[in-house]
Amino acid sequence: MNRKELFENIKRKKSFLCVGLDTDINKIPKHLLSSENPILEFNKAIIDATADLCVAYKPNTAFYESLGSKGWETLEETINYIRTNYPDQFIIADAKRGDIGNTSAMYARTFFNSLKCDAVTVAPYMGEDSVTPFLNYENSWVILLALTSNKGAFDFQFTTENDEKLFEKVLRTSQQWANEDNMMYVVGATKTEMLEKIRQIIPNHFLLVPGVGAQGGSLQEVAKYGMNKECGLLVNSSRKILYASSDTDFSQKAREEALTVQQEMNKLLNAFL
Amino acid sequence: MNRKELFENIKRKKSFLCVGLDTDINKIPKHLLSSENPILEFNKAIIDATADLCVAYKPNTAFYESLGSKGWETLEETINYIRTNYPDQFIIADAKRGDIGNTSAMYARTFFNSLKCDAVTVAPYMGEDSVTPFLNYENSWVILLALTSNKGAFDFQFTTENDEKLFEKVLRTSQQWANEDNMMYVVGATKTEMLEKIRQIIPNHFLLVPGVGAQGGSLQEVAKYGMNKECGLLVNSSRKILYASSDTDFSQKAREEALTVQQEMNKLLNAFL
Repeated sequence: MNRKELFENIKRKKSFLCVGLDTDINKIPKHLLSSENPILEFNKAIIDATADLCVAYKPNTAFYESLGSKGWETLEETINYIRTNYPDQFIIADAKRGDIGNTSAMYARTFFNSLKCDAVTVAPYMGEDSVTPFLNYENSWVILLALTSNKGAFDFQFTTENDEKLFEKVLRTSQQWANEDNMMYVVGATKTEMLEKIRQIIPNHFLLVPGVGAQGGSLQEVAKYGMNKECGLLVNSSRKILYASSDTDFSQKAREEALTVQQEMNKLLNAFL
Repeated sequence: MNRKELFENIKRKKSFLCVGLDTDINKIPKHLLSSENPILEFNKAIIDATADLCVAYKPNTAFYESLGSKGWETLEETINYIRTNYPDQFIIADAKRGDIGNTSAMYARTFFNSLKCDAVTVAPYMGEDSVTPFLNYENSWVILLALTSNKGAFDFQFTTENDEKLFEKVLRTSQQWANEDNMMYVVGATKTEMLEKIRQIIPNHFLLVPGVGAQGGSLQEVAKYGMNKECGLLVNSSRKILYASSDTDFSQKAREEALTVQQEMNKLLNAFL
């Protein structure tokens, strides 16, 4: 999916919500455990209940890998389910990969060729040749970690050289490798005070924003400081939607939760766009 | 496997060689392609031909993931094959993972609980809470990326704050999270001029050293500047061993290549230990 199509979807659906499919076998409703593939059943129900309210889905590979080859198969089936039934969804593999060139090329093949994702999250530590192999696929995106939502972000991402913090250096340097048509950045909602500065460096890029919801970030703050003229935001919510209820009404409750977020997003789009 | 056992294996086998199982379906001998699982057949032959000459195997997850759930199954089967037939081998999942705490915990479960690896490589960008969930397993290791062997290492790893480079900050800071009994570091053989300085910061930790062989690093230099009193080195070779021949003699040629490296390592252990 290209940038124009993504923005069209955002305007049409009045939403910039990304639903994170961090599906944990220990957290899904117990009544699903007797089905043949509880994770897949859960994912399908969540997707069916939220697809008209969001523009993106983001399965995190950790949750599937932890179930071995069967889990990887469930990841493939989940992505196929979205592709087949909801072709207007932007699919992000939240994988945080990154390795030497020939190995990153293998990962790129995995996520773009085999799994047919639109985007994959990539860690910047290993630099240019660990990132650029992901850029060789048409209408496919790298979402580079810049400023993450967790506490550990303060350990290295704020390392300062010549008045420039490491995450700012990542933003600046990576613009030599890609542009706003094939790169986005992860910027955590828990650090909205940095968004103004970030928008000075990358005014036009989309940001993938985790940390609203369970991690405590504010959607209003994100929109106020992060929105640009093409919205430029994909705000992720995972746990708060997925586990809105642990009972048989889980998908209905997930929908209600997603609807609340989408209605707020509609207001914010009207206010700031 | 604990540090003492690893060092005993190094002394007994007169080797600190790690064979990287970066098995690429496009590079293995053509005659294997008719077998039911060419990658697994290739891996078994390579492992049988080299197990007495090395102390560790390091499958890189990228090469298995690129083949989907079937590839993930092959990764599981490869690790089981080593565990069953060569229980003295140290098994490293070269995965370069790292995510927010609850997600890193999922990855740790994957590599230590399900796959029964001894170690997993982890990227430091997201800081403490992305790394520490991997430290909750007995006799299991984090191998943290510090200074990588690729060209892109110069993009961010040399970012300098108060005369300290980022990779040095990673070495220093991460010692608050772990010690030489549960953490190692990736230091590329292509940057041996940094090894003396690195050994000042972490005299006792093991280093996993990629970049000898196809990437051009020198084994002598690595041993001269990197070896400590318990060896403290695992030097990886992947492509040069795996693809020593593309014919039916591939495992014999792989053995010859591994033997050449092991004999040189024997000399270096005698010289520097």
